[in-house]
Amino acid sequence: MTRPSAVPPPVTAVLDASSRWLPSRLGEVEDLLREQGRDHGERLGAEAATTLAAGGKRLRPLLVLLCAGVDGGEAAVRAAAAIELVHMATLVHDDVLDDAPLRRGLPTVAATAGRDRAVAVGDLLFSRAFVLLATHGDARAIALLARASVALAGGELAQRQDAFDAGVSEQRYLDRCRLKTGALFECACLLGHDTEALGAFGAQIGLAFQLLDDVLDVSGPPERTGKARGTDLLDGTVTLPLIAAAAADPELRKVDLHKLDARNAEQLCDRIAATGALEEVRSRALAMVGAAKEKLASAAFDPEQRHLLELVADGVVQRYS
Amino acid sequence: MTRPSAVPPPVTAVLDASSRWLPSRLGEVEDLLREQGRDHGERLGAEAATTLAAGGKRLRPLLVLLCAGVDGGEAAVRAAAAIELVHMATLVHDDVLDDAPLRRGLPTVAATAGRDRAVAVGDLLFSRAFVLLATHGDARAIALLARASVALAGGELAQRQDAFDAGVSEQRYLDRCRLKTGALFECACLLGHDTEALGAFGAQIGLAFQLLDDVLDVSGPPERTGKARGTDLLDGTVTLPLIAAAAADPELRKVDLHKLDARNAEQLCDRIAATGALEEVRSRALAMVGAAKEKLASAAFDPEQRHLLELVADGVVQRYS
Repeated sequence: MTRPSAVPPPVTAVLDASSRWLPSRLGEVEDLLREQGRDHGERLGAEAATTLAAGGKRLRPLLVLLCAGVDGGEAAVRAAAAIELVHMATLVHDDVLDDAPLRRGLPTVAATAGRDRAVAVGDLLFSRAFVLLATHGDARAIALLARASVALAGGELAQRQDAFDAGVSEQRYLDRCRLKTGALFECACLLGHDTEALGAFGAQIGLAFQLLDDVLDVSGPPERTGKARGTDLLDGTVTLPLIAAAAADPELRKVDLHKLDARNAEQLCDRIAATGALEEVRSRALAMVGAAKEKLASAAFDPEQRHLLELVADGVVQRYS
Repeated sequence: MTRPSAVPPPVTAVLDASSRWLPSRLGEVEDLLREQGRDHGERLGAEAATTLAAGGKRLRPLLVLLCAGVDGGEAAVRAAAAIELVHMATLVHDDVLDDAPLRRGLPTVAATAGRDRAVAVGDLLFSRAFVLLATHGDARAIALLARASVALAGGELAQRQDAFDAGVSEQRYLDRCRLKTGALFECACLLGHDTEALGAFGAQIGLAFQLLDDVLDVSGPPERTGKARGTDLLDGTVTLPLIAAAAADPELRKVDLHKLDARNAEQLCDRIAATGALEEVRSRALAMVGAAKEKLASAAFDPEQRHLLELVADGVVQRYS
């Protein structure tokens, strides 16, 4: 059994609570991800291999494996690796779009190899995901993952379309988050086990995850998030904290994000925080996680499986508590 | 029957020579491509819809349909649309990589909507291709197309790795072309009908296509190619004309492509042409097309199908005659 070298806290909690099958299966996912890098030798380049090895929370693979349960077998391992490949492909492309220097405290592919190579590396990781599934004829999994990929790209496009519009509606923001983040969490659960309740569970914790991520961009602190406060705002990405704050402080709707610099961004973050918007968004996210956990009650799980899924849901929250 | 509004010459020749099923089926491919744009409404954005509608040679869909033959049915139409979606996704991303202002004489997505949106538009087109196939459970087609997509991305990465290296070997150039161009032509034929002979036919005319494309970059004239002579060289892309010319004029291996500007690029093109390299590469490509056509002899085709595939092979050459 291979265990990821730097397992992040939420995953550790789940692994500690689970019986042996889960860590063993997660180790197989890691092996499979490493193989994707090796196969291409020099061509895949150090960038993709580094991206693959760098880890991250592996939340989506964990959801696939947990929803599939102990009988999920090799198909679940492949699906778990495939969804992580798609996730990493989107991260590599996101960093191109945002011109981001750091990701998880490490330099991005876009920063080290150039935005040009990063586009191709993302394409490669993305294609590998479908090869992995197609080679074994996992048609249902391919359909689910391809649809989620369409949603991801649609979410990215929506984000670009709304960029720098401080007056964007809450509905539009939530729709965008469902596409950009919720769809892949939903897909992870459905890849494991295709039921409405699990899909809804995944979609909701995904949405909560994004909301809390957006709170963190405003609240910091930078030494924990690994990026400056207001980074999204500087990119023109308007998120729920600003939208909610503008309800109390309508002048915020007129802020010209084009004119923001690093210092102004901090001040804008303080002004958003002063309205109590961060607590509001945080408690909405917590309510979502609570509702998501209740969805599990209606599904016929064995007690361990349900308990572990609840731990994952809690993990989404704990990152930010 | 819907017929593309501006059918390019090689396709016209094939359509004129074929009985009714082919133009009708190609019309269905166009309808399906248009649907891919419509489905997303505002979100897909004008960019993707324009890319989809802009046409192009549709050589890959034509190969799918021809290899599948009259009995190919809806599965062949879907595969033909899917491979064109992947092709267009790579064009959109290529234009990001190359920062290209024009494609087929029209502004690129990267130029009109920005490189950021272009990355997401490419991702969307790419994902749509797999949704299209997965929705109907075309597992074999997905495996073929995903493998070709890996090759395409690998080819792009190889090209970036070799950029500005005037001493790159012919072997490495040919390998790159097989990945970057040959693999998708091969895939088109295999999507239609999975035989070794047809795959080899596709791979060879794809390679010839790329060689002739690279000749055209050096030979021009710009009013026919829609881009300045030496555009690839300015991007640091070393192709067979330069490699072949350096055999006669070894100083060319030491050219510093980083120092090239538009005027120098024209002079370098003239110097390459003066060695006779363009005729050499052109006749190698013609020989490849000839060999590809002979591959068809070993396959059991009806005479019309074989004749039409030969016309496509000729079309690859005629673009440049």
